Amino acid sequence: MKNINYSLSGLGGIAKTHLVGLRNLEMLELGLDFKVNFSTLATTHPEEKKELAREIGFDQVAANFDKLLAADVDLVDLCTPNFIHAEEILKAAAANKDIYCEKPLALNLAEAEEIMNKIEGKSLKNQIAFVYRFAPAVAQAHALLKNKVIGEVQFAKVEYYHSRYLNPELPISWRLEKESSGGGALVDLGSHMIDLSRFLLDEVESLSAWTKTFVEKRKTAAGNSKKVDVDDWAMLMLNFDSGAKGTLEASRVSPGNEGFRFHIFGDRGAIQIDSDQIDKVQLFDQTPKEIEVSKEMLAGDQFLNRLLELNSGSKLSQGMMVDLHLLSLIFFFESITEGKANPGVPTFEDGYQTQKIMDYAYQSAAEDGKKIEIK
Amino acid sequence: MKNINYSLSGLGGIAKTHLVGLRNLEMLELGLDFKVNFSTLATTHPEEKKELAREIGFDQVAANFDKLLAADVDLVDLCTPNFIHAEEILKAAAANKDIYCEKPLALNLAEAEEIMNKIEGKSLKNQIAFVYRFAPAVAQAHALLKNKVIGEVQFAKVEYYHSRYLNPELPISWRLEKESSGGGALVDLGSHMIDLSRFLLDEVESLSAWTKTFVEKRKTAAGNSKKVDVDDWAMLMLNFDSGAKGTLEASRVSPGNEGFRFHIFGDRGAIQIDSDQIDKVQLFDQTPKEIEVSKEMLAGDQFLNRLLELNSGSKLSQGMMVDLHLLSLIFFFESITEGKANPGVPTFEDGYQTQKIMDYAYQSAAEDGKKIEIK
Amino acid sequence: MKNINYSLSGLGGIAKTHLVGLRNLEMLELGLDFKVNFSTLATTHPEEKKELAREIGFDQVAANFDKLLAADVDLVDLCTPNFIHAEEILKAAAANKDIYCEKPLALNLAEAEEIMNKIEGKSLKNQIAFVYRFAPAVAQAHALLKNKVIGEVQFAKVEYYHSRYLNPELPISWRLEKESSGGGALVDLGSHMIDLSRFLLDEVESLSAWTKTFVEKRKTAAGNSKKVDVDDWAMLMLNFDSGAKGTLEASRVSPGNEGFRFHIFGDRGAIQIDSDQIDKVQLFDQTPKEIEVSKEMLAGDQFLNRLLELNSGSKLSQGMMVDLHLLSLIFFFESITEGKANPGVPTFEDGYQTQKIMDYAYQSAAEDGKKIEIK
Amino acid sequence: MKNINYSLSGLGGIAKTHLVGLRNLEMLELGLDFKVNFSTLATTHPEEKKELAREIGFDQVAANFDKLLAADVDLVDLCTPNFIHAEEILKAAAANKDIYCEKPLALNLAEAEEIMNKIEGKSLKNQIAFVYRFAPAVAQAHALLKNKVIGEVQFAKVEYYHSRYLNPELPISWRLEKESSGGGALVDLGSHMIDLSRFLLDEVESLSAWTKTFVEKRKTAAGNSKKVDVDDWAMLMLNFDSGAKGTLEASRVSPGNEGFRFHIFGDRGAIQIDSDQIDKVQLFDQTPKEIEVSKEMLAGDQFLNRLLELNSGSKLSQGMMVDLHLLSLIFFFESITEGKANPGVPTFEDGYQTQKIMDYAYQSAAEDGKKIEIK
Repeated sequence: MKNINYSLSGLGGIAKTHLVGLRNLEMLELGLDFKVNFSTLATTHPEEKKELAREIGFDQVAANFDKLLAADVDLVDLCTPNFIHAEEILKAAAANKDIYCEKPLALNLAEAEEIMNKIEGKSLKNQIAFVYRFAPAVAQAHALLKNKVIGEVQFAKVEYYHSRYLNPELPISWRLEKESSGGGALVDLGSHMIDLSRFLLDEVESLSAWTKTFVEKRKTAAGNSKKVDVDDWAMLMLNFDSGAKGTLEASRVSPGNEGFRFHIFGDRGAIQIDSDQIDKVQLFDQTPKEIEVSKEMLAGDQFLNRLLELNSGSKLSQGMMVDLHLLSLIFFFESITEGKANPGVPTFEDGYQTQKIMDYAYQSAAEDGKKIEIK
Repeated sequence: MKNINYSLSGLGGIAKTHLVGLRNLEMLELGLDFKVNFSTLATTHPEEKKELAREIGFDQVAANFDKLLAADVDLVDLCTPNFIHAEEILKAAAANKDIYCEKPLALNLAEAEEIMNKIEGKSLKNQIAFVYRFAPAVAQAHALLKNKVIGEVQFAKVEYYHSRYLNPELPISWRLEKESSGGGALVDLGSHMIDLSRFLLDEVESLSAWTKTFVEKRKTAAGNSKKVDVDDWAMLMLNFDSGAKGTLEASRVSPGNEGFRFHIFGDRGAIQIDSDQIDKVQLFDQTPKEIEVSKEMLAGDQFLNRLLELNSGSKLSQGMMVDLHLLSLIFFFESITEGKANPGVPTFEDGYQTQKIMDYAYQSAAEDGKKIEIK
Repeated sequence: MKNINYSLSGLGGIAKTHLVGLRNLEMLELGLDFKVNFSTLATTHPEEKKELAREIGFDQVAANFDKLLAADVDLVDLCTPNFIHAEEILKAAAANKDIYCEKPLALNLAEAEEIMNKIEGKSLKNQIAFVYRFAPAVAQAHALLKNKVIGEVQFAKVEYYHSRYLNPELPISWRLEKESSGGGALVDLGSHMIDLSRFLLDEVESLSAWTKTFVEKRKTAAGNSKKVDVDDWAMLMLNFDSGAKGTLEASRVSPGNEGFRFHIFGDRGAIQIDSDQIDKVQLFDQTPKEIEVSKEMLAGDQFLNRLLELNSGSKLSQGMMVDLHLLSLIFFFESITEGKANPGVPTFEDGYQTQKIMDYAYQSAAEDGKKIEIK
Repeated sequence: MKNINYSLSGLGGIAKTHLVGLRNLEMLELGLDFKVNFSTLATTHPEEKKELAREIGFDQVAANFDKLLAADVDLVDLCTPNFIHAEEILKAAAANKDIYCEKPLALNLAEAEEIMNKIEGKSLKNQIAFVYRFAPAVAQAHALLKNKVIGEVQFAKVEYYHSRYLNPELPISWRLEKESSGGGALVDLGSHMIDLSRFLLDEVESLSAWTKTFVEKRKTAAGNSKKVDVDDWAMLMLNFDSGAKGTLEASRVSPGNEGFRFHIFGDRGAIQIDSDQIDKVQLFDQTPKEIEVSKEMLAGDQFLNRLLELNSGSKLSQGMMVDLHLLSLIFFFESITEGKANPGVPTFEDGYQTQKIMDYAYQSAAEDGKKIEIK
C-alpha cells in the first residue's frame, strides 16, 4: 500500500470538487493499492482558510506555492485560475513533482510550448483535468470508434452549451478577461470538446473558426462599464487527418439545452453522446435503429476496461462532476504507483495540442474564418 | 366567386399530396373567394391514369405538357421530377400561364437564370413550393425576428435530417443522379433550409461548404453497381449580410433525429423551431427561461396574419404535410385572384436565390470548403 | 368491383373527418374491390348544406333520416350527436341497412340493450368507430399480447388526457349535458380506452370508479350559469377475468400530457402505447431494456395482417385521425363485400360491452367507488 | 458553535450515503452553528470495519448497539435493516438519545405503535429519513399547494418505478422476505410516496389496495427455489380527508420509467413533480400552459424557506441522493440545536402514519381491494 502525499494549490469551487470525492475515496472500497494523505494546501488566504483546511484533513497550510513545494509532497494538484497554471507548472517541474493540472494547460500556445520544453525528458507524471474522458458514454464511444463499429467517421457535430453569461448583469470576473483566462467560451467549455474530439476521432489537420461576444460590455466589480475581450460563443470547423469533417461549438449564451453533445456519423451508423445521459452511449445502425452496445463492440480498450472495473466497485455516486474528477485523479495516482499512465489518460501533451487548436482558432476568427493548417 | 382552372403536371407522390388537400378544400369552409376546377392533368401514362384522374375530378387528361397548355387552364402546378422543371416553366411562361412549381426551381444556376430572364417583365404569378414557410412555428419566428424580440441575431444553427439513404440497399433512382436531380441531400432537403434561412434571417453574403457521399456505390434498378455522384450530406457555413453566422446541415444519412430544427441565437434571447412541434415556436429570454410568445411580439406581420386567419377557420387537419401544401396553394390562388402575392410568399426569385446558394455551395465543396462570395 | 352506396347522417366535425379520407380513397390505390358512391346525406340544415354536399359529391341531400333510409343506400354512417344514435340505429336496423356508428353506441345501457335485441338474428353488418384499434401501435400490441410475448399481464395503466375543459369559460354544449351526451370524459374519451382494454387485455369482471367535475358551473349559450351534470374526470379500477388489474383514467381537464397511453406490465416484460408515437409499440423485456419487435412476435394476427397490407399500400398520410377513421371504414366496407367482419373489428357487441362498463362505473362512482361485479 | 456527537448503526450502502455528505459538510461553508463529531460506529463486523471507520473519522467502533448507547453520543443514526429499527429505537429512546432512523419506521403497525407509546412524553428529537421532502421540487409543490395556487386538489396520481426486480435471477435477500423487510415494493418505495402524499395533500381517510408478486419464486443464496412472500408491485386507491382522490403505485418491476412522479390536478391548474427534474416543480394553469412559478406563489413556507437558504449556500453538489440525505440530516441537527423541529420535518409521527397506511393496504390487498377506513 503506497502512501501518496497529496498537495493542492487553490481552494475555490473546482478544488472543492476534487476534495469532496477524494475525502470519500476510502469509503468506496475500490481495492486500490494506494492511500492519499492530505499533506499541504497552498492558498492565498492561509489564515482565513486554516480551520477549514484542518477540517478537510490537510496537515498544513502553505502561504504560497514555493512553500508548498518545499514540503514533503509527492504531487501537486493545481486548481488555481488559468493565468497561474504555467507559472506553477514550471516551478513544480523544476522541483520534480508529479503534476495534475486543471484545464486549460496555459493561457496561450507560447506558454504551453514553454511547459512542454521544460518537462521534456523528465520522468515526472503529468495529467490535465479533461475529465469528460472518464464519463462512461465517452469511454464507450472511444472503444466503439476504435473498433470501427460505425465504419469510417464522415462527420462529427459537437456542442457544449451553457446559458449563464446571457445575463447582461453578470459582472466582469477573471473568466471574462483575456489576460487572465486566455479566452472565453472556447477556453472554458471548448477545450473539453477539443480534447474529446482528438480522443474520439483524430488529430486536426486544419480549421476555420468564428467567435462572437454577445454581451459586448459588462460592469466591473467597481461598477464601471467595460468592453469584454473574450468570446461568449465560438464555432470551429474542423478537418481531421482522417478526412472526416467536424463542427465544434462552445457557447455560454445558449438558453434551453445545457450540457454537451456529440453526434458522430459514420458510413455504417452513428454514435451519440449526451451529457444528460452520460452513463450510456447511444448507437445507431444503418437500418436506422438504435441498437444495443454489445461487449464485443467494446472489447480491447484498456482505458474503458480500467474504468469499468472502478465503476463496478461501488454503488456510491456523488454526482457526475464529483465522480468524474475522482476517477481522473485515481487514474493519475495509478500512473504514479504503476510508473506509467493508462493510454487513455489526458496528459500535458493533450493539453498542449488543445492549446494549439484554440490559439489557431482565435487567429482564424480574427480573420473571419480564414482556413489555417495546424502545424 | 372566381373560378380557377387548375392544371397539374405529374401524378407521383408529391402531386397526390397537393391533390388530397385541394379536393377537400371546400369542406374546410374557409370563406375563400375562389373555386378550384380540376381541369387538366398531364401525365406520361395518360391511358393508365385516365380512370384515376376521372375519380379525382379532372375534366381531362393530356398526353403531354404542350397539350395541357393548350387547354383552358389558368395555371400550372408542376409536380414533375427536378430535371423537367425548367423546360415546363419556360413553356408555361411562354404561354403566359401562372406557375406553381415544386422545389427546386431548376437543376442548376444556369437553368434558374434562364427562367428568371424569361419571366422578367411578365405579369404572371409564380410561386415555388417552399412550404415550410407556412408552418405556424416558422411564420411565428418570422414575426418575432422582424420585431427584434431576441435582439440582433448572432448565430443560427440549422439542420434537416433524414435517415433513409443510410440503407446501402436503396437502389439508384433519379434522386441519386446529379443530371436528373441537380444534387443530393442539399437539393432535396437543404433547399428548404436555405429558403427558410433567407426568409427568417437575411441574405447570404459568403459561404463555405462540405459535402460527403456516405454510400459511395449503389445498385441500379438493373442490379449493376454504380458510383453515386450526389451528396448524402452537406454542411454550409454561412455569413449573412447582417454579420450573423450560420451553419446549415442537410443529411439523408442521419439516424435518430428525423426532421428539421432551427436554433437561432440573438443577443437578447433565442428562438427554436422543431419540426416535431411545428405548431409553436419556442422562445427564450436572457434569464434564460422559455417564455410565452405574446400577441404584441408577433404584431404587424402580414404573412402570419393571413396564415392565422386560415388556420383558425377549421379544426380539420389532414396531417402536417398535406396542410402545408394546401396553405401554400391557397396563398398562390389568392395571389392570382388578388393580383398580387402576399409579401411572405416564396416566389421564383426565392427559388433562384436558393439555387444560387446551392450552386456556390457545390463549388465550395469541390474545393474542400473554399470561401466564396455570393454575387 | 362492388359499388357501395354510402349514406351519412350528420355533417359536423367528425363527419368531415370521415369524408376527407373517403374522398381521397381512390388516390391511395390500395387495390380494394369496392367503390364508394356518395349517395345521400341527411342533415338538419338541408338547404344550407346543399351546395357543400354537392361539392363533396353526394347525389342528394335528405331532409331527415327517414328520407335517407328510403333512398337507395347500402349502409348508413351515423355521425350525429350521442342522443340520436339509438333512434337512428333502430330505424336503420328496421330498414335492414348495414350500420356504422360513431361512439358511444347509445346514451346508456338500457338503450344499448334495446339495440342489441333489435339487431339480434339480423344479418346486417355493424361496426362502431372505436378507431384507435386501427392504430399500428395498438394492433401490434394486440398481436404481442395474444402471443404472450410479455408473459401474463399483471397490471395495465391506461390514461387519456385532454385539457380543453379546464377553461372555465367554455360554455355548456350537448357534450356537457348528461341527457344528450350520456356522460362526460368517461363517455367521450374513456369509451375508447375501455374498448382498447377489452381488445388488448380481457373482459372486465368487476370495477370501482370515481368521477369528478372540476368546473362545477358553466355558462349556457344564453349566458346563464348552470350546474354541470357530467364528469370532467373519471378513474376506473378494473379487475379483469384473467386476474390482471387495471386503472383507466379519462380526463378533459389535464394540462400537460395530451393524448392517451397504455402501460401494460407482464411478468416477463412490458408494453407501452403512446398516442404521440402511434406507429410503433414499445416493448421491454426483463433485462429491462427496450427491445425490437420481431416479425415472429407479431405472427398470426389476422387483424394486424390486413392492417399492415393496407398501410403498406400507400405513402400518403392525411394525419393520424383521418387515417384511422378511413382504415376503420375500409374494414367496414370489406365486412360488407366479404360477408363477414375481420375478427379484430369493433362491432355493436363491443359498443354494448363498453356501454355496460360505463353504466356500472357511473353507478360505482355514485356510491364513492363501491365495487360492482359486471354481469 | 455546538458540538454534536454523532453515532451511526450500520455501515451498508445507505449508511455510506449519509456519511459521504456529512464528511464534506464543512466544505460547503453553510454558516451552520453546529459541528459534527464522528463519535461511534456500531457494526456487526467491528474488526473488519475498524480501519475503514478510522479512515471515515469515527473515534471508536462499538461491537453492538448497547455499547454504542453507552458511549458519549448525542444521537443515533439508524441505518440497519428494517427488522432492527424498532429494537434499536426502543433502546435509544430508553437511553434518551435523539434518534434519526431510515425508513420504514418499523416492520408493521404493532411495532410502530409500541415505538410511539415509548417516545410519548419524552422530549427526544426524532426524524425519519423520508428524504424526498427535501427535494426542491417537492418543497416548492408543498408551498404552492398550501397557497392554493391550483385551487382545490381533485386528484393526484403518484408512481415510483424501479425495474431491478424484473430480473428473475435476482436472489432472495432480506428485502424479499416479509419477516425482515415488512413488505416489498410498497415498503421500499411506496413508503416514500405515502409520506409525500400526506406532506403535500392531506391525511388519508380510507383506501383500497392491490398487490402483485410478478416473480413468484426466486433462488436463495444457497441456490434453492423459494416462494416470494412480498409484493413486487402495489397500487393504492386513496380517499383523502379533503375529498380528493389519489392513486399511488409502487413497483420494482417496471421497465422504462425509473423514478417517481406526482401529477396533482386541481380545479384551477396542475402540478407535476418528476424525479428526473427534481430541482424544479412544473406548474400548469387553466389556459392550459406551463407557467413560471413566482416568489409570491411560494411565499410563507417555513420549510421551503430554510431549504432555499441551505441550497443557495453552496454550488457544490454531490448528486441528488447524497444532497437529499445531507439536507435531511442538517434539519435534524438543527432540530437538536434549536430545541424544536422545522414544521416540515418528517418525524416518527409521520413514520407511524405511513406504517398505518401500509398495514391497512396489505389488509385490503389480502381481501382483493376491500375498502378500509383509516382509524
